[in-house]
Amino acid sequence: MFDRLQSVTRHFPKYWLACIPLIALVIGVWDLAATAADPQGIEIPDEITDPAYVQGVLNTVWILVASVLVIFMNAGFGMLETGFCRQKNAVNILSKNLIVFALATVAYWAIGFSLMYGAGNGNGFIGFGGWFLSSSDPASYGLDPFPAGLPISVSFLFQVAFAATAATIVSGAVAERIKYSSFLLFSLLLTAVSYPISGHWVWGGGWLGNVFGGFHDFAGSTVVHSVGGWAALMGAAILGPRIGKYEDGEPRAIPGHNMSIATLGCLILWIGWFGFNPGSELAATSNIAYIAVTTNLAAAAGGVTGTFTSWFKDGKPDLSMSINGILAGLVGITAGCDAMPYWAAVLTGAIAGIIVVFSVAFFDSIQIDDPVGATSVHLVNGIWGTLAVGIFDGGTNIMAQIVGILSIGGFTVLMSTIFWYAIGAVTGGIRVTPEEEMEGLDIGEHGMEAYHGFLKESEMGATASAVTGNVAGGSELI
Amino acid sequence: MFDRLQSVTRHFPKYWLACIPLIALVIGVWDLAATAADPQGIEIPDEITDPAYVQGVLNTVWILVASVLVIFMNAGFGMLETGFCRQKNAVNILSKNLIVFALATVAYWAIGFSLMYGAGNGNGFIGFGGWFLSSSDPASYGLDPFPAGLPISVSFLFQVAFAATAATIVSGAVAERIKYSSFLLFSLLLTAVSYPISGHWVWGGGWLGNVFGGFHDFAGSTVVHSVGGWAALMGAAILGPRIGKYEDGEPRAIPGHNMSIATLGCLILWIGWFGFNPGSELAATSNIAYIAVTTNLAAAAGGVTGTFTSWFKDGKPDLSMSINGILAGLVGITAGCDAMPYWAAVLTGAIAGIIVVFSVAFFDSIQIDDPVGATSVHLVNGIWGTLAVGIFDGGTNIMAQIVGILSIGGFTVLMSTIFWYAIGAVTGGIRVTPEEEMEGLDIGEHGMEAYHGFLKESEMGATASAVTGNVAGGSELI
Amino acid sequence: MFDRLQSVTRHFPKYWLACIPLIALVIGVWDLAATAADPQGIEIPDEITDPAYVQGVLNTVWILVASVLVIFMNAGFGMLETGFCRQKNAVNILSKNLIVFALATVAYWAIGFSLMYGAGNGNGFIGFGGWFLSSSDPASYGLDPFPAGLPISVSFLFQVAFAATAATIVSGAVAERIKYSSFLLFSLLLTAVSYPISGHWVWGGGWLGNVFGGFHDFAGSTVVHSVGGWAALMGAAILGPRIGKYEDGEPRAIPGHNMSIATLGCLILWIGWFGFNPGSELAATSNIAYIAVTTNLAAAAGGVTGTFTSWFKDGKPDLSMSINGILAGLVGITAGCDAMPYWAAVLTGAIAGIIVVFSVAFFDSIQIDDPVGATSVHLVNGIWGTLAVGIFDGGTNIMAQIVGILSIGGFTVLMSTIFWYAIGAVTGGIRVTPEEEMEGLDIGEHGMEAYHGFLKESEMGATASAVTGNVAGGSELI
Repeated sequence: MFDRLQSVTRHFPKYWLACIPLIALVIGVWDLAATAADPQGIEIPDEITDPAYVQGVLNTVWILVASVLVIFMNAGFGMLETGFCRQKNAVNILSKNLIVFALATVAYWAIGFSLMYGAGNGNGFIGFGGWFLSSSDPASYGLDPFPAGLPISVSFLFQVAFAATAATIVSGAVAERIKYSSFLLFSLLLTAVSYPISGHWVWGGGWLGNVFGGFHDFAGSTVVHSVGGWAALMGAAILGPRIGKYEDGEPRAIPGHNMSIATLGCLILWIGWFGFNPGSELAATSNIAYIAVTTNLAAAAGGVTGTFTSWFKDGKPDLSMSINGILAGLVGITAGCDAMPYWAAVLTGAIAGIIVVFSVAFFDSIQIDDPVGATSVHLVNGIWGTLAVGIFDGGTNIMAQIVGILSIGGFTVLMSTIFWYAIGAVTGGIRVTPEEEMEGLDIGEHGMEAYHGFLKESEMGATASAVTGNVAGGSELI
Repeated sequence: MFDRLQSVTRHFPKYWLACIPLIALVIGVWDLAATAADPQGIEIPDEITDPAYVQGVLNTVWILVASVLVIFMNAGFGMLETGFCRQKNAVNILSKNLIVFALATVAYWAIGFSLMYGAGNGNGFIGFGGWFLSSSDPASYGLDPFPAGLPISVSFLFQVAFAATAATIVSGAVAERIKYSSFLLFSLLLTAVSYPISGHWVWGGGWLGNVFGGFHDFAGSTVVHSVGGWAALMGAAILGPRIGKYEDGEPRAIPGHNMSIATLGCLILWIGWFGFNPGSELAATSNIAYIAVTTNLAAAAGGVTGTFTSWFKDGKPDLSMSINGILAGLVGITAGCDAMPYWAAVLTGAIAGIIVVFSVAFFDSIQIDDPVGATSVHLVNGIWGTLAVGIFDGGTNIMAQIVGILSIGGFTVLMSTIFWYAIGAVTGGIRVTPEEEMEGLDIGEHGMEAYHGFLKESEMGATASAVTGNVAGGSELI
Repeated sequence: MFDRLQSVTRHFPKYWLACIPLIALVIGVWDLAATAADPQGIEIPDEITDPAYVQGVLNTVWILVASVLVIFMNAGFGMLETGFCRQKNAVNILSKNLIVFALATVAYWAIGFSLMYGAGNGNGFIGFGGWFLSSSDPASYGLDPFPAGLPISVSFLFQVAFAATAATIVSGAVAERIKYSSFLLFSLLLTAVSYPISGHWVWGGGWLGNVFGGFHDFAGSTVVHSVGGWAALMGAAILGPRIGKYEDGEPRAIPGHNMSIATLGCLILWIGWFGFNPGSELAATSNIAYIAVTTNLAAAAGGVTGTFTSWFKDGKPDLSMSINGILAGLVGITAGCDAMPYWAAVLTGAIAGIIVVFSVAFFDSIQIDDPVGATSVHLVNGIWGTLAVGIFDGGTNIMAQIVGILSIGGFTVLMSTIFWYAIGAVTGGIRVTPEEEMEGLDIGEHGMEAYHGFLKESEMGATASAVTGNVAGGSELI
């Protein structure tokens, strides 16, 4: 042990030199620290005598718990998307899904939250002010639907989790061929600029709240899922399909590498949605239980119809369609989970589960290569769910729904296209080289592999193929 | 991109023709939507002045959170059971565990909840009325132990998660040889009919509540776990053991394929139980913390004794016995978690952890092949836990416990046997062919594999065996 | 089926003989049961009229939910550490991470909680009394910061989850070469004795609360993370590096075997921290939302800087450094999450993410072999986070922070060293044999493998290496 201590002393300066600029930075901001305002903004009474105070705290606890559930969805998306792709790209997909919530947090804290909820102007198109969450006055943010007394901090936490969801949806559709750096830049722009602006129209007090009696999107079938879906569609279309996906124009299946973690991801997303939808009540009321039940019924119905549709269509029940059916049901009920009767929730989910199976085949047929079916789940069923409110809820005008779908869709397509091409211009194209794609992005982008120590089919040469006898045909598909 | 858009137009009609019947359906139910009642049933005051109102909302929030934890147990069971089985059957087990909660939700919503809690008659044997959760009047459901003001919706959500648990327990015991379709049908019947009827006897105001001063099963050692365990036992017995499990009458170990996800599953179940047991208080009180501690102590004690028992018995600490010991402790404390002192919780769990190790060996020895030990964990320790309340809680008559165990056990054995044989008659036997079993159910039932791109021992022919040198003997065991 | 029933009868006595001592034990404690006190200690009113009562229940619900999140961190650490190590040691690491929470629960219930919070004496160095959670009087435990009316049970649950965290941190650093039995003993001693004593100094009303105006460690950067980190460092140093880690004194990378579960582990830890930090408020207030946001900002900032630092330093963004950056940010903010402005939280996390990358390289260079980087994440950033409060929070004296870091560090180093050497003396050395280490601890310690049925590189002989062509050089690294 003592020679190790010597070794410490010898190596010490070499590594800790790096700390000098850090220390300088720390000292530089020291003064700022002294002027930091009281962070909380809400007084805690010595004695509890007011039921309204307790209700306020209960609102805070509930939204915090709901936020945690929504943040957990990052793990759900990460496992789902990774499992549905090939092992040679697993590190890359995991890296994207991990960093996207980190980047979204920083971007939405700095700019996004203010563009979405900032009350600095009232033009109905874009929010302004309160950057970096710098104001502790709720009036600085047009948190219109938020109940009085709810801390800004918890509103931010819940909203940033939503922003990250939109970005994570993109991740799956562009998987297995996009440059890591291109994806990072797109995520930043989506969560900092595009998503907040269209979100402002609906939830930030913007113009869509007044169209035809009000666009109804309770928890974000359009605001979150379709936005992510449109951005994903543009990314997948601009990137083009993966090498080997099409032969003579016909799509070939590229199987995922880990259905265990994909299924885990689906179940994590299922429980995450109990934060996503009931949390969108933005307060603790008895409604949250009702919303949880419509959400659960739609998920279940989508899972059942997704499974049986794939069973009838392809002869066997496809696990990935059970998964996508559940997710389709969840996306479909998101807009109307507060307003639909139970039977309509079941029907909305059941139809979503059928749609998703045909939608996946449809996108395959038009050569939009979406490895995880994100477009079918989030875009197509985001639209379906938004329409479903107009159909099943007497209080919602279906014209308002159509205007909302088209305006937010058009805006997101426009912004995404600009972003993708601009990033391509800056980074020398958003797609990795064919060599890197064949070898796998894990080695090319990250210099590591996901499952070290396991033998993979792709590692077996001609001799080994002869040995094992059942290696799949096209090596580019492995 | 433009040729892709052309391609969209060309393929469009082909796929979307499928939507025509859907649209017809939607229009058909349009009228119904207009008559949908106010879904919530509970008014939200403009100003909060009543502490009892806040307590009611707090009850709702707590039961919703507890429901989410219990629903998360689906992921726990899914990972545990999949990890304990072979990779060639992983997709099948994942599919079963995923669809079972979807099916249970639909079945329990339509029928099960009414059979368990419907107040339409008062015969003490079976509930009736309020089908499809159609009533918003709590008096329609004999939600006797539920506090006033708790929304029916959250009661349903919590109860449906319990119903699904019973069905999921079956999944593990019949794994690796049951037809997917047979399992689906059994799950439907169990959650729609059998589980609700016996559940009514205890929690729905039925006859067991008055026997010998009352059968005490706070959170379902018998009502949920033994019921699932009996159904699992009958399934495993009727199916017979897996090919290769017995040689000359002696059991051979068939190792699971993924201990990482099995361990994850155990830890998810552990935290899920903090919804299962404390949530069974059905309200937010200080008792929930006490229940959480007895639950945790029993789980810990079971994990410790399970580990050490396997260590003494077999010479090395078996991870699967650490896992099963924890689960046995959790099942064991479930009946009495509200009523036992801490030391009794530790003792109940410790004994459960010992029992489970010998029980697994016992079922192996009588040629009941239960791949994951579900019968030992849920049935045997469900019984033990139910007895333990009679032993350790002064207020409970052990005769009541024995009557409850026998009556619910007898009923479930009878119903399960009828179900299994009826399903077998309808579907041409509940077991897959030997060829399919050897190849794996993933290919046979679902046409896909769980871990594409990885080389498996079963894929290596004679040459490869010579190369690797350490492939296990009987190829049917891989 | 009937011959199976016969078989049951025949084998019955053999296995159930084991129950005789158990039954004797049960009867022996029967009398004790009759005298068990009312477990709850807190009365539930028939009618809710007091807002303070509802607030008390809300506190309980919140701390219970926070406890569940912290307990879920066991799954996070389990997946992270297992994924970062080799598949041949996976069962061993999973076993350690599973049993450590079980052991900690028993040890902390029996002794630890009393040594940390027992109010039986007032010497400021060690707590005393209320062993086995035997008292239902809050005054028996110096639960100074706990609000009135919070049940002791929930305080215990939250604290035991913290104690287990300290022990789990050790697990990763000593992985792949420590004897299972040695680790169990160390965990017992750490959670029963050492962690509670140093914890008493800060949170149990001990002497550090009064030094230089008070040592500020809100949620345990020092009390939990550094303590675990110091114990881990001593373990890793005394064990020495893994075989093959160093060649001619230069460190070689030993890649982990499963980045999917490692990433999942990171995301589970991330959400677990929303229990760890906001739960440390020990009550439901609006502050918990503020704490959640500082926590999230620091995690995100650490993830971003960790990723980019590794990108600049090594040329490619390393997923394990994204993961360790996030965890470093979380550890770093833990001490001051309640007291820092948002920008300081971002800065604290950002610096932590940079530190961790250089720290990992530093420990590698001094031949401290820590397979998962636990020392860099928990010890180094635990220290950094504790200092950061002194820097960024005007109300904290940095001298108090330094005294706290040094005294707790010194005590833990002393105790850990004694523990490790004492355990080594008792168990014949804490390290497995070189043969067992080469073969993997899964076979040696547990007699099983984690991924049965998959082909691993280590199973391929010379011929197979020639076939696959890309097997890594040193076989001891697989």
